[in-house]
Amino acid sequence: MPLDETARGVYVIAPTPFHEDGRIDLASTDRMTDFFLQEAGADGMTILGVMGEAPKLDAAESLDITQRIIRRAGKAGIIVGVSAPGFAAMRALARGAMEAGAAGVMIAPPSTLRTDDQIVTYFKQAVEAIGADIPWVLQDYPLLFTVQMTPGVIRRIVQELPSCVMLKHEDWPGLEKISALRGFQADGSMRPISILCGNGGLFLDFETERGADGAMTGYAFPDMLAELVKLSRAGERDRAHDLFDAHLPLIRYEQQFGVGLAVRKYVLRRRGVIASDAQRKPGSTLGAKARAEVEYLLSRLARHDARAKLAPAG
Amino acid sequence: MPLDETARGVYVIAPTPFHEDGRIDLASTDRMTDFFLQEAGADGMTILGVMGEAPKLDAAESLDITQRIIRRAGKAGIIVGVSAPGFAAMRALARGAMEAGAAGVMIAPPSTLRTDDQIVTYFKQAVEAIGADIPWVLQDYPLLFTVQMTPGVIRRIVQELPSCVMLKHEDWPGLEKISALRGFQADGSMRPISILCGNGGLFLDFETERGADGAMTGYAFPDMLAELVKLSRAGERDRAHDLFDAHLPLIRYEQQFGVGLAVRKYVLRRRGVIASDAQRKPGSTLGAKARAEVEYLLSRLARHDARAKLAPAG
Amino acid sequence: MPLDETARGVYVIAPTPFHEDGRIDLASTDRMTDFFLQEAGADGMTILGVMGEAPKLDAAESLDITQRIIRRAGKAGIIVGVSAPGFAAMRALARGAMEAGAAGVMIAPPSTLRTDDQIVTYFKQAVEAIGADIPWVLQDYPLLFTVQMTPGVIRRIVQELPSCVMLKHEDWPGLEKISALRGFQADGSMRPISILCGNGGLFLDFETERGADGAMTGYAFPDMLAELVKLSRAGERDRAHDLFDAHLPLIRYEQQFGVGLAVRKYVLRRRGVIASDAQRKPGSTLGAKARAEVEYLLSRLARHDARAKLAPAG
Amino acid sequence: MPLDETARGVYVIAPTPFHEDGRIDLASTDRMTDFFLQEAGADGMTILGVMGEAPKLDAAESLDITQRIIRRAGKAGIIVGVSAPGFAAMRALARGAMEAGAAGVMIAPPSTLRTDDQIVTYFKQAVEAIGADIPWVLQDYPLLFTVQMTPGVIRRIVQELPSCVMLKHEDWPGLEKISALRGFQADGSMRPISILCGNGGLFLDFETERGADGAMTGYAFPDMLAELVKLSRAGERDRAHDLFDAHLPLIRYEQQFGVGLAVRKYVLRRRGVIASDAQRKPGSTLGAKARAEVEYLLSRLARHDARAKLAPAG
Repeated sequence: MPLDETARGVYVIAPTPFHEDGRIDLASTDRMTDFFLQEAGADGMTILGVMGEAPKLDAAESLDITQRIIRRAGKAGIIVGVSAPGFAAMRALARGAMEAGAAGVMIAPPSTLRTDDQIVTYFKQAVEAIGADIPWVLQDYPLLFTVQMTPGVIRRIVQELPSCVMLKHEDWPGLEKISALRGFQADGSMRPISILCGNGGLFLDFETERGADGAMTGYAFPDMLAELVKLSRAGERDRAHDLFDAHLPLIRYEQQFGVGLAVRKYVLRRRGVIASDAQRKPGSTLGAKARAEVEYLLSRLARHDARAKLAPAG
Repeated sequence: MPLDETARGVYVIAPTPFHEDGRIDLASTDRMTDFFLQEAGADGMTILGVMGEAPKLDAAESLDITQRIIRRAGKAGIIVGVSAPGFAAMRALARGAMEAGAAGVMIAPPSTLRTDDQIVTYFKQAVEAIGADIPWVLQDYPLLFTVQMTPGVIRRIVQELPSCVMLKHEDWPGLEKISALRGFQADGSMRPISILCGNGGLFLDFETERGADGAMTGYAFPDMLAELVKLSRAGERDRAHDLFDAHLPLIRYEQQFGVGLAVRKYVLRRRGVIASDAQRKPGSTLGAKARAEVEYLLSRLARHDARAKLAPAG
Repeated sequence: MPLDETARGVYVIAPTPFHEDGRIDLASTDRMTDFFLQEAGADGMTILGVMGEAPKLDAAESLDITQRIIRRAGKAGIIVGVSAPGFAAMRALARGAMEAGAAGVMIAPPSTLRTDDQIVTYFKQAVEAIGADIPWVLQDYPLLFTVQMTPGVIRRIVQELPSCVMLKHEDWPGLEKISALRGFQADGSMRPISILCGNGGLFLDFETERGADGAMTGYAFPDMLAELVKLSRAGERDRAHDLFDAHLPLIRYEQQFGVGLAVRKYVLRRRGVIASDAQRKPGSTLGAKARAEVEYLLSRLARHDARAKLAPAG
Repeated sequence: MPLDETARGVYVIAPTPFHEDGRIDLASTDRMTDFFLQEAGADGMTILGVMGEAPKLDAAESLDITQRIIRRAGKAGIIVGVSAPGFAAMRALARGAMEAGAAGVMIAPPSTLRTDDQIVTYFKQAVEAIGADIPWVLQDYPLLFTVQMTPGVIRRIVQELPSCVMLKHEDWPGLEKISALRGFQADGSMRPISILCGNGGLFLDFETERGADGAMTGYAFPDMLAELVKLSRAGERDRAHDLFDAHLPLIRYEQQFGVGLAVRKYVLRRRGVIASDAQRKPGSTLGAKARAEVEYLLSRLARHDARAKLAPAG
């Protein structure tokens, strides 16, 4: 089912599981997919994202893993990152992903864009390249891409390009931006879109209250994210914040550039989701001090959330 | 007493209190100084920092408030930010600050620096400009300045410039950097320096454990920072983290670019430290939603820390 | 006489003459002022520019040299650069410059500006700070400042801020921008402004043909620039290009970041305008190979332009 | 024959010829290859460069055109740009290019690199990815990539990675860098490498005198570049500069970001090398004023160089 503006809940940014020797770990990929979508309560997954290890896969591997995850996912929506240095590659990735059964694609702006017009023009050209029939997610991540899109620019993109159905919101700070965009919808100047939030979930407690529809991020406890979104939607404010606050020390620790993926894979391995936390070269690893810090954070979290109660590290 | 490498504890990054009409609020400045240094247990203050409202002060105002705070501070050390677009202005600020009784000055790298040699050369020239007799703090804040200093480059600066006595550490991620620098000291390749951490305190719980001497940041509860540093130094790990975790939701909220100062002044006003949270133009303000979120965070914090139990907002 | 939108011709970006020991060379300053304005046919000068050595002057020196040049300049218009990290300093510089008799001031955007709205807002705040009565020049130099202003954004600034009377145009490429702005004037959507071009004059041959009013740059033969602008205005296209092409090898050589000022001062010294090509520390110098290259370029230029026929280098 | 450190002369950065409807123009591709290598006297070509239209080709098209040009080129060396967002894609491109018969590949640093160590590490990882048996060109283009490599860093790369055989030098300013690198060779601290210069040839007159082995750039008169390099090598200094100076007004005009490719294709079409100056979408075009300016520059050049004497534009 194609992605549309009614999407909500949690779309997990999925890492790529590898064996220690650098081969893709297919069994872990399957288990991870099942875990995210069956056990953790996620509504979908986003794969081949710009911050993950997708650039370390060659074209055949990318297509293989995309197809495998989509097949395994069943009815859940899989979004495929198609940002590329040129529109020809973007088109090939996008058409290939949709043929494989993806729900939609995600596009980030190249870091050279500066003016409002440059930004809008880029996304018009991208849609012309991939085709107006593919639903897509606009990724707004100024801290990484150094491209700043005002609410007004996002509105121009949404209004001029009907196939844009979702915003991956990870501006920082970003709470007022959510309010501004929802205000545009309320005053009728922008059609509705889905807003899912990134940034490792660091502000998700308030983002849902501001009108976000959920999360698209990769925190190692996506089950908590899904629960938080439901509590918030049910108006259980205090319970939502209690849950969030218990996880915040670890969320914050995982939200470190470069180190973050190593932490995420480490915790996913400790939770039994993937077999190894190896990264394909060139990758980062956690030193002994960092591993001990993560274990300490897990042990503290376990006092509040049984999911963090893990067998001793091997 | 001049700043040296034994400095530890908390040096509060001080905001500038204004009246609603934009004039400097001298009474609040005095009260804030007393609060930070007498009540909150801070060891010093850092003023005229690059992220505060110092650039909105004219030269006479800057000198006035520097002198006033230094007089009021008594024996506590006052560090004065002297980053400037040119060395002539930097020299004038630094000599003026020291004559007024400052303990030392702080210098940030200009955002144009890229290569290792450019960075080292800049600080050599800066020391030549201000004079080798003034103790100074090296500010390492890549997220803001876009200048990346490896541990090796910091070691070169420390070894070649004896008047550099402190690092204001706010790289992100930064825990391994602290370990690397303390490792240099341990293996004898770098002389000891003081390391105080910024970034709003977002990682202070682990930074102290990695070997940092304390904090130099502006969180609205510097009394908590001081307590945390003491607990950590006393080996009270769990108590330190319990205290930190209770504050983390607000620390995280205050650590938003641009918005942060508005939150900080709002909370300091609510705590009775300053009379108004006005910023001199052009400034940011908290909208109604943001104010309500801060109040909610304070009410939740108050369950764990009585200092956050405040009279209802007026 | 205050600067207005009818300004045309050449405003020389003036270097600061120093003695070998770093003191300001007042006699050379006077001689340089006379040379630019009496002999070379320039219509004005721009001082304390962001790329010169202004940041190496302390506040008293800046004011002194500003007053001295303005007195010496007589009726010619002196524009003073007032870009500063904060509005308080900008206001102080601007008011001081105008009291000293400046014709106007020049403001560059800080490198942090990204979106169209941020840019327009910044200049509104700047005008609010310095006062709407001071005529000012908008400096558009994306290569240096990394701020990109579209023609539409420049139009917004011009229309919303009547005290903006001139554009220092140094976008690169920039010919179409001049045409776009003059098109706005032609269709009545923008009021007239003066456009003077920078970039070392590298495109001045065509910029005047596109509608620029002249040059504001620092090439060591401002007399050539003045002559070129006159030829172009008189419709002597081929003669203008012949003159320009003869100088282009040297213009191009001088238009090298960092090295440029050393070349400029070297040639001005060789022409007898200033006594020394010393830069105040930290400065750049020409190595032996570079000096020989400049001499070779001068000797080749001398075949076409007698002004380049100089006594052998000492 | 694989590329090595003895390479000299001119390697033309080749554009991709398109039909008006966006299809690759194979006949023009052949004619262009013949022209560059047979008539213009170039020693090789560089294809799929980062500034050309390579990102607009899909993978199959890239491989097709690479194979076609290599077959057509005969013994001349073809260098293939393999810069990519990830090492898997870089490896695939590099192995594919070498299998097709390329002489070597070219790698540019990603714009996120800052510190000396990051830069050296990146190229080590790249060589590990593509294999140490593939000769490669280090592209040093700070203005575009915002990565600054000091001569010392280049030396580290050259010394640690024997398969690096050439530097594409386009730092700006860059003359002293050539001298520094040749100095390293002279003092024995760096093994010899080939240095070919880019930047549209804007400084080629002096770059050859500083020790560069030639040019790797895309100016529309590569025959002039080849002649210049020969004159310079033969010690015909004045004749080399006479030739260069005649072309400089056009070289300078072509050296405009974004516009440059449109100028280049326009002139190549006017010279009969390619059938159309169309760019695949999204592309830039020359407006009427710009075309007239180029025609005027060609007519002026024709007084000195008969190759610029062209039939009237159609």
